[in-house]
Amino acid sequence: MRVLSGIQPTGPFHWGNYFGAIRQYIELQEVADEAYYFIANLHALTTVRDQALLRQYTLGGAIDLLALGLNPDKAVLFVQSDVPEVSELSWLLMTGTPMGLLERCVSYKDKLAKGLKADAGLFTYPVLQAADILAYDADVVPVGEDQLQHIEVCRDIAGSFNHHFGQTFTMPKGKVLDQSARVPGTDGEKMSKSYGNTLAVFDDVKAQRKQVMRIQTDSRPMEDPKDPAGDVLMDLYKLVASEEEVADMTALYARGGFGYGDVKKALADAAERYWAPYRDARAHWAAKPDAVREVLAAGAVKARAKAAGVLRRAQEAAGVGGW
Amino acid sequence: MRVLSGIQPTGPFHWGNYFGAIRQYIELQEVADEAYYFIANLHALTTVRDQALLRQYTLGGAIDLLALGLNPDKAVLFVQSDVPEVSELSWLLMTGTPMGLLERCVSYKDKLAKGLKADAGLFTYPVLQAADILAYDADVVPVGEDQLQHIEVCRDIAGSFNHHFGQTFTMPKGKVLDQSARVPGTDGEKMSKSYGNTLAVFDDVKAQRKQVMRIQTDSRPMEDPKDPAGDVLMDLYKLVASEEEVADMTALYARGGFGYGDVKKALADAAERYWAPYRDARAHWAAKPDAVREVLAAGAVKARAKAAGVLRRAQEAAGVGGW
Repeated sequence: MRVLSGIQPTGPFHWGNYFGAIRQYIELQEVADEAYYFIANLHALTTVRDQALLRQYTLGGAIDLLALGLNPDKAVLFVQSDVPEVSELSWLLMTGTPMGLLERCVSYKDKLAKGLKADAGLFTYPVLQAADILAYDADVVPVGEDQLQHIEVCRDIAGSFNHHFGQTFTMPKGKVLDQSARVPGTDGEKMSKSYGNTLAVFDDVKAQRKQVMRIQTDSRPMEDPKDPAGDVLMDLYKLVASEEEVADMTALYARGGFGYGDVKKALADAAERYWAPYRDARAHWAAKPDAVREVLAAGAVKARAKAAGVLRRAQEAAGVGGW
Repeated sequence: MRVLSGIQPTGPFHWGNYFGAIRQYIELQEVADEAYYFIANLHALTTVRDQALLRQYTLGGAIDLLALGLNPDKAVLFVQSDVPEVSELSWLLMTGTPMGLLERCVSYKDKLAKGLKADAGLFTYPVLQAADILAYDADVVPVGEDQLQHIEVCRDIAGSFNHHFGQTFTMPKGKVLDQSARVPGTDGEKMSKSYGNTLAVFDDVKAQRKQVMRIQTDSRPMEDPKDPAGDVLMDLYKLVASEEEVADMTALYARGGFGYGDVKKALADAAERYWAPYRDARAHWAAKPDAVREVLAAGAVKARAKAAGVLRRAQEAAGVGGW
């Protein structure tokens, strides 16, 4: 199994990113034969049009992943733009990709519908994504449900290239991440950067506590028992508290006679404990940016070696080079 | 003045290619400070989907250009795909290119209207073309009238990148080629590969003579004088015959009393003389494919050195790298 996943460096990770995706694909480094994880700065260019921010988010993303447990001895960690072969492969794929395939992509249509200015980068995004996946012969790509369509597009592109030019690319499969754990935002909606309702993974303790205290709750009187099912505080608590703590809190909810302020305090405490080791690891890496750069440089060397072989295969198949 | 031009390797050059374009931009090598000429094999992928043909046309195109007078001591001759920096730059430009800009491109709309299957390569073609131009800081791009719109697209893309990220790219200008000399095809229409009415530059003498003999003429009686203006044979004759020969032929047309067969013979003779030195040069280069490959390899080194500098500038401006 060769696993690949890319993360867009568009800002600090939040709990939704972590529990919904990052934690799970970092775990895959333990079972994969090879694992490639990259900071997708070229994709981020479709939304981050600020040079200093993109730089900061790119290095920051790498630091975050290392802090969250990505082990460079087990997985190849690199920055997308450090592998020129992917841009080269992208054009080879572009020439065989029907317009209709891209026009049907929901993520593109959604952004259009939201009135986002449509540019060619947004439109051809799935082609670059296909190049990312195919360049490493990845066969397993962990994704959220909403990204499954792009994996299908990648399979379509790879399949038609293979059909026309002969067997060249490994067919990848999407592995749908377990997103059954609800990660509500501070307003009770799904936690999402675009809703402005996130809890950052690496906020400092004080800032995080403040965020937790602001979580919206209902106004049932203190003395009433409360239903823990679908309760925002409880859903978040389950993510960061121990099983016993969750059991105690569930009993408290059934009994009543407490205020949400108490639950928020317990949540903030649990979060502080949960994130403490990661926060320490982050401080460790953040203090050594050159060590992070070395990890990324070493990762790029490995990634390029792999991608160069695949690119050569594709170029030969299409008659680009070898004249 | 830094001149750049790319030629798609989509098959043997015909007289229209030569007199309408190739001859003129080869002449520019004499006056330009730097001249970059490349075989646009990545662009050709949008139409040539046959590995062996693309290879053959790519090396063949280089041989043709050398035979036609391109001087590798004066101009940098290389193959597009040998400069990965162009593919990299292409994505940076893609993310800022409005969909509308590409949707308005006439060459795309025309191909759609002709029922050609639209793929993303055809659609984003002008973005790759912009990367080609901008990667070498080209300021003069010789083009036919029909390609002027793509130069405008390139200027739009470069201008908006410069505006957003700071001065990065040199603004190119299109230099419209002199296409006043009419190059009719064997059926009297404009000579064009898509009309199947071409005379190849490098056909062997016998094949060319056969082609000339097949040119369609009207059926005015031998004894009548004929109008040389707009006459297919005369238009072609003017391209390959000497001034005196043309004057003699013009007098003959005014007098009448000759058959088109005689004119065709004169045209075939003049063509044979005109192309002989080029045909010899082609035989010379074709017999030394490794020498051609060396020219291309040396060209690629120079082209990459230039393109790498421009790419770095663009990446720094956009915050890709340098973290």
